Amino acid sequence: MGILAVGSIALDSVETPYGKAENALGGSATYFSASASYFNSVSVVGVVGTDFPHADLEFLKKRHVNIDGIKIEQGKTFRWGGKYHDDLNQRDTLFTELNVFEHFNPIIPDSYKNCDYVFLGNITPSLQINVLEQIKKPKLVVLDTMNLWISIAKESLLEAISKVDVILINDSEAKELTLESNLVKAAKKIFEIGPSVVVIKKGEHGALMFTKTSIFSAPALPLEKVCDPTGAGDTFAGGFFGYLSKSGVLTDEVLRKAMIYGSVMASFCVEDFSLQNLKNLSEEQIANRYKEFVKLSSF
Amino acid sequence: MGILAVGSIALDSVETPYGKAENALGGSATYFSASASYFNSVSVVGVVGTDFPHADLEFLKKRHVNIDGIKIEQGKTFRWGGKYHDDLNQRDTLFTELNVFEHFNPIIPDSYKNCDYVFLGNITPSLQINVLEQIKKPKLVVLDTMNLWISIAKESLLEAISKVDVILINDSEAKELTLESNLVKAAKKIFEIGPSVVVIKKGEHGALMFTKTSIFSAPALPLEKVCDPTGAGDTFAGGFFGYLSKSGVLTDEVLRKAMIYGSVMASFCVEDFSLQNLKNLSEEQIANRYKEFVKLSSF
Repeated sequence: MGILAVGSIALDSVETPYGKAENALGGSATYFSASASYFNSVSVVGVVGTDFPHADLEFLKKRHVNIDGIKIEQGKTFRWGGKYHDDLNQRDTLFTELNVFEHFNPIIPDSYKNCDYVFLGNITPSLQINVLEQIKKPKLVVLDTMNLWISIAKESLLEAISKVDVILINDSEAKELTLESNLVKAAKKIFEIGPSVVVIKKGEHGALMFTKTSIFSAPALPLEKVCDPTGAGDTFAGGFFGYLSKSGVLTDEVLRKAMIYGSVMASFCVEDFSLQNLKNLSEEQIANRYKEFVKLSSF
Repeated sequence: MGILAVGSIALDSVETPYGKAENALGGSATYFSASASYFNSVSVVGVVGTDFPHADLEFLKKRHVNIDGIKIEQGKTFRWGGKYHDDLNQRDTLFTELNVFEHFNPIIPDSYKNCDYVFLGNITPSLQINVLEQIKKPKLVVLDTMNLWISIAKESLLEAISKVDVILINDSEAKELTLESNLVKAAKKIFEIGPSVVVIKKGEHGALMFTKTSIFSAPALPLEKVCDPTGAGDTFAGGFFGYLSKSGVLTDEVLRKAMIYGSVMASFCVEDFSLQNLKNLSEEQIANRYKEFVKLSSF
């Protein structure tokens, strides 16, 4: 068995300077799973409403994502609406309707409880802890989070972070979490909480990975066509953890390559709306994009 | 003869969360020359007042910088005062006193007019053009600029840019200059103006180099101790152009290495106030820092 992924499944309405998508597939678990599915098998735990399009479930199945853990509840699916500025680093949230996601209570199916690799996507930290308590003896746990939980649930977020091996966090969130404006110092403070690997995502500026013995800087591919940045972070997480779990070892070399595969997948993600560009990538496309990263950073 | 550098020479009063420096050596020509002097010989053209400390001139001479082109005029030296926030990416300018720099009219000594390599530091674009008109047949001209000239002298800045081979510009300035929020498109628009190499500096996020056939992403070294970011861009330019001019060829490989040497020198610069950390670097220190960049970006 590959990765167990827990997170949100959503229908997003997104407008960017390049167009818009209405009620398109979104959510942290979805982007993560689609991306990771190119490297390893993934089983998702999440919740959707009865309005969730059959086609979207079919898409995940086609990507060989195990969706037995997706519960369909009476009501509407979690919906998010956002509008990006000309500068795609800026966006306004137009609406957030939690719907069935509001009372999401992730029950891990028995068949998943022995899984080795766990991805705790961006949900309430108390639920991330709850999920971990249901898993028997995972080899490697990766956690993603967001600024909201730092603001309203810092204590339980710190507890969740203390239980994981790898944390993925934005640069602004790392600073907010640690009250430290220097990222090297922020990473050290996060080591003290528990994780042994700290990945700091910087959007179009790439990502930094801190281990206790080294720092790695992964570039982002400068793209002429950035259509929709939604989900890029979760897609990065999917490529990163997909490659890592497939490799099965946690050497510095594997971790660095995982960072690049995360960046590769994120670069595909932002080139189209929703998960459009994660539907049918070939091995060759992924390998070629990886080579572009080699060219981009070689000296 | 090595590089001819034209730019400002200043006395800076800088306050950061880590301390302060009063009337310390600063200015674009100064940071550039000190940095480039580790790679090639440099001759500076600039102006200072009669108050300019003898020790600062001595410092440049000790770095084998030819200061015959520094004119000492009756009056005070250009002074700038700034205060950095806890987040060192933010700063407030406290004062700008142009003094003798206000009527700076760079006269290139005859002995410099045959130089191959010209650095046009951040001064009024019309003066940058004026300097170029005095040089006979330079092999390579590198221009740096700032947002002020985009706002108040865009036409002459475009003319200056049209005459150079390499432009160094901040990401925000590149966007402002080209009215293009996407950096790949911005670089293409700058190619149309004239330069064949566009270096976009992104501060703590490193720098991108665009040539007509490739993109290179140079990381910035994540530093635990960033004392004073003043002059980092000019110091980058010094390492970049110093290495480039020393190599004498403009291959993609040399350009990429030059980007890393620029980043190496900038990383030293920000570790202390003013030019303190650029005074006595050994070849070994520079080589070791270069190796840190290799480690930082290898995968």
